[in-house]
Amino acid sequence: MTTATPDPSSAERACFEAGIKFGSLYHQFAGTPVSPDSARSLERAIEAAIENQPACVAVSVEIDDQALQSAIDAGGADYTELTGRLMDVRIEVYHDGTNVVAEMAMEDGYPLMQLESVEESS
Amino acid sequence: MTTATPDPSSAERACFEAGIKFGSLYHQFAGTPVSPDSARSLERAIEAAIENQPACVAVSVEIDDQALQSAIDAGGADYTELTGRLMDVRIEVYHDGTNVVAEMAMEDGYPLMQLESVEESS
Amino acid sequence: MTTATPDPSSAERACFEAGIKFGSLYHQFAGTPVSPDSARSLERAIEAAIENQPACVAVSVEIDDQALQSAIDAGGADYTELTGRLMDVRIEVYHDGTNVVAEMAMEDGYPLMQLESVEESS
Amino acid sequence: MTTATPDPSSAERACFEAGIKFGSLYHQFAGTPVSPDSARSLERAIEAAIENQPACVAVSVEIDDQALQSAIDAGGADYTELTGRLMDVRIEVYHDGTNVVAEMAMEDGYPLMQLESVEESS
Repeated sequence: MTTATPDPSSAERACFEAGIKFGSLYHQFAGTPVSPDSARSLERAIEAAIENQPACVAVSVEIDDQALQSAIDAGGADYTELTGRLMDVRIEVYHDGTNVVAEMAMEDGYPLMQLESVEESS
Repeated sequence: MTTATPDPSSAERACFEAGIKFGSLYHQFAGTPVSPDSARSLERAIEAAIENQPACVAVSVEIDDQALQSAIDAGGADYTELTGRLMDVRIEVYHDGTNVVAEMAMEDGYPLMQLESVEESS
Repeated sequence: MTTATPDPSSAERACFEAGIKFGSLYHQFAGTPVSPDSARSLERAIEAAIENQPACVAVSVEIDDQALQSAIDAGGADYTELTGRLMDVRIEVYHDGTNVVAEMAMEDGYPLMQLESVEESS
Repeated sequence: MTTATPDPSSAERACFEAGIKFGSLYHQFAGTPVSPDSARSLERAIEAAIENQPACVAVSVEIDDQALQSAIDAGGADYTELTGRLMDVRIEVYHDGTNVVAEMAMEDGYPLMQLESVEESS
């Protein structure tokens, strides 16, 4: 017997949209050569690029200068490749009446993407 | 006055995870040189790569040979670059008791990523 | 019988370096969501990112606003994905006494990466 | 006074082509989620994808299982992201009478892309 599955809710669709933005941001820009001199322009370009995507209200990217310098010092060049360990990201999505905020930050030594809040807008 | 926001539900977190997989898949592999000869190996590699990600149960990628040939014929070479217009994707995620299925397919001439079903597992 | 192959020359190594920069630039950033509002920040970030790479003297990226608008008009959204058809790129490399300039521009309707000049510096 | 610069030679153009393939390969696939189970399919897909590019004769990619397992053990998941430290790559290009072989391998602890040989074909 098959029982009908209800359609996904607006909140669930908004969370799906937030996830798309995170995956897009990460896999589009991971691997980009980055140094202290280029970090600010890369932050701004990532924000503006992902904000183009549907339902995306705001994106904030902060490359951690100290983590960046440590990664450079551990390598053999004067730049490194962008990874999740080097940046904090906050993405705000609005979809069909629901606001979603999601963040990526270091937790227990690893970068973790997490849903922070899901709110019906009034 | 600030009212407390309830924590995101398991279903919402599962939808966020499904979105991450879609954004990752798309922006990791879009732009890959592809031809009829390399399409099958690329499908398999994309599936196996994304299935590595947390909460990802199954990924199915089908590159449309007819759309691929049309894109090649419209260009100046014997290959083209992978885009959403050339493939159908189905991703199944399981997170904390919830199964989510999401798909990307052409709709009205454009590739669209959509949540198909969100079900509590019994 | 095996005859010895001479080592690659400085000029050949410099041309190899120039090619690496072009391939890196293209496949790192192709697929990035782009609109007239985000085009300038993306140009600057691409230039600064690739200039980090070894032997890279200068990078110039110009996203063609008219081509960008045409691509957006042809699609179903208010942005598009960056491709070689939307930008002109010029890269200057210096390696072990040789200056190399390479460019990517539209030729006969297709984006073409070409070596422009290879000069021993005096 | 401007003195004429001679056009780049066939060998120089072939070296430029070889560099494009290396940069493309690296920045298209760096960041891909990879595990021992998915390494073989990823190797094959990278080879077939880059062999589509003009002038590319053969591509060989070997993901080092021991380096892969070490990277996974050092992280918090059962997969890691592909980087140059995890793979050896050999690319053969033929352009206008010249064969070029280039390789990427670890040297002094860092991945290095190098021109191995440039030969006029007879």
